[in-house]
Amino acid sequence: MHIDLYFTPHQTDELALRERTVVVIDVLRASTTIITALSNGAREIIPVATVESAVKISGNHFGDVILLGGERNGRMIDGFNLGNSPAEYTVERVKGKAVIFSTTNGSQALVKARYARELFVCGFVNVGTVAEALWRTPRDFTILCAGSDGLLSMEDSVCAGMLISRVGAGGETDPELSDGALVARTLHRTFGRGILKMIRSSDHGRRLAEIGFDGDLRYCAGVDTLPVLPLLEGNVIKLRSEVEKKEAVDHSQET
Amino acid sequence: MHIDLYFTPHQTDELALRERTVVVIDVLRASTTIITALSNGAREIIPVATVESAVKISGNHFGDVILLGGERNGRMIDGFNLGNSPAEYTVERVKGKAVIFSTTNGSQALVKARYARELFVCGFVNVGTVAEALWRTPRDFTILCAGSDGLLSMEDSVCAGMLISRVGAGGETDPELSDGALVARTLHRTFGRGILKMIRSSDHGRRLAEIGFDGDLRYCAGVDTLPVLPLLEGNVIKLRSEVEKKEAVDHSQET
Repeated sequence: MHIDLYFTPHQTDELALRERTVVVIDVLRASTTIITALSNGAREIIPVATVESAVKISGNHFGDVILLGGERNGRMIDGFNLGNSPAEYTVERVKGKAVIFSTTNGSQALVKARYARELFVCGFVNVGTVAEALWRTPRDFTILCAGSDGLLSMEDSVCAGMLISRVGAGGETDPELSDGALVARTLHRTFGRGILKMIRSSDHGRRLAEIGFDGDLRYCAGVDTLPVLPLLEGNVIKLRSEVEKKEAVDHSQET
Repeated sequence: MHIDLYFTPHQTDELALRERTVVVIDVLRASTTIITALSNGAREIIPVATVESAVKISGNHFGDVILLGGERNGRMIDGFNLGNSPAEYTVERVKGKAVIFSTTNGSQALVKARYARELFVCGFVNVGTVAEALWRTPRDFTILCAGSDGLLSMEDSVCAGMLISRVGAGGETDPELSDGALVARTLHRTFGRGILKMIRSSDHGRRLAEIGFDGDLRYCAGVDTLPVLPLLEGNVIKLRSEVEKKEAVDHSQET
């Protein structure tokens, strides 16, 4: 099992990720928000790179069964229903809805990985569940951190390191690590005992606290609080249980 | 004093580096080779991004006072005089010569930083000299690591961390660090006591050892063995002492 890692989507392109198993990490806040929305009953998340695409895809369904969510530079987008704070994605708001989702960094990473063989969404809130899926069926994988405007993010890197450590602890053999993956594991060993403190002193964490989102920092620092596995199915992100249900139905219709 | 860091040139562009103080690090091997060539009396190094540019610039001077040096994927380029091994850049070969220089990663980083206000070339071999220049005249600076084909390189990151630690130790106040700079300092604290071991187990180090360059790994791991300061002056890299001599002459001609 070989693990490699990109600290920002700028480091790579669609072709390099094609047919790979990819884990996208954007702790602050796209990953955590997507995981929260799906845990709270959203039917699916449709990641798009641009605000224009979001509006176009939403078409006439706007505000009905489809919601528009996301941010640019940490703030809500004009005409959107929801921002990028997980606190907004309550059961009342999202249950049964599809959410078209566009953010500064996280959506860019998701869109770049759209030709992956399989794609999981990971944050601290579900890191154990993603790790278990990976060590139970061992295969090479690539971690794609969203970073922040082309720069490495400490919180994504430490989360990636926690994922790598747990995959290693769960499996029978030690995974081979690229330089990037080894860096992430080292950061997790150094900063992993104080996740909230690390997030609060990170570049992105400080910016979010300044614009009033310290509550989000605490929420995004929660480890294994939402044990679900969001994965890309076609162009939408769903929970594994939903994907498996659909596959079971498809299969029963075939026979 | 604020320090930020890019782990690969892919993370940034010319505009972001414009008018900044930039330190370019490519331990394996462009930085180390440039520092070696200048220490051994090369008049100047002219970094270019493409082989075509190198051949074009060399024009009719080819092989006379101008040498062509560099590599693609660790190997010498057809028609070039020198590869990218510092061992080739001996006094006999380079004294008094200009070297047009093009490599897979290092030259790309140098070319990307060509509009910097000032640009230093750094490796383990001269890290103390670069650190001293920075803490003696404190200013914000950006470290641009060459990385390896768009991926973070452990050896560049640890060297960056050593530079940051030494700038911090030399100066009167602790520098502010971006997430990337904090990552590098953490890596230096973890791996800094065994530089050669770290280089030998890095992705790039293992590839170079496989194609017969283990001697280069040992050489590039030497700390402070070449206490010189190469800096960009116009489009060429020279030693600070040479730049200062030229400035003194220019000044005496003015008065």
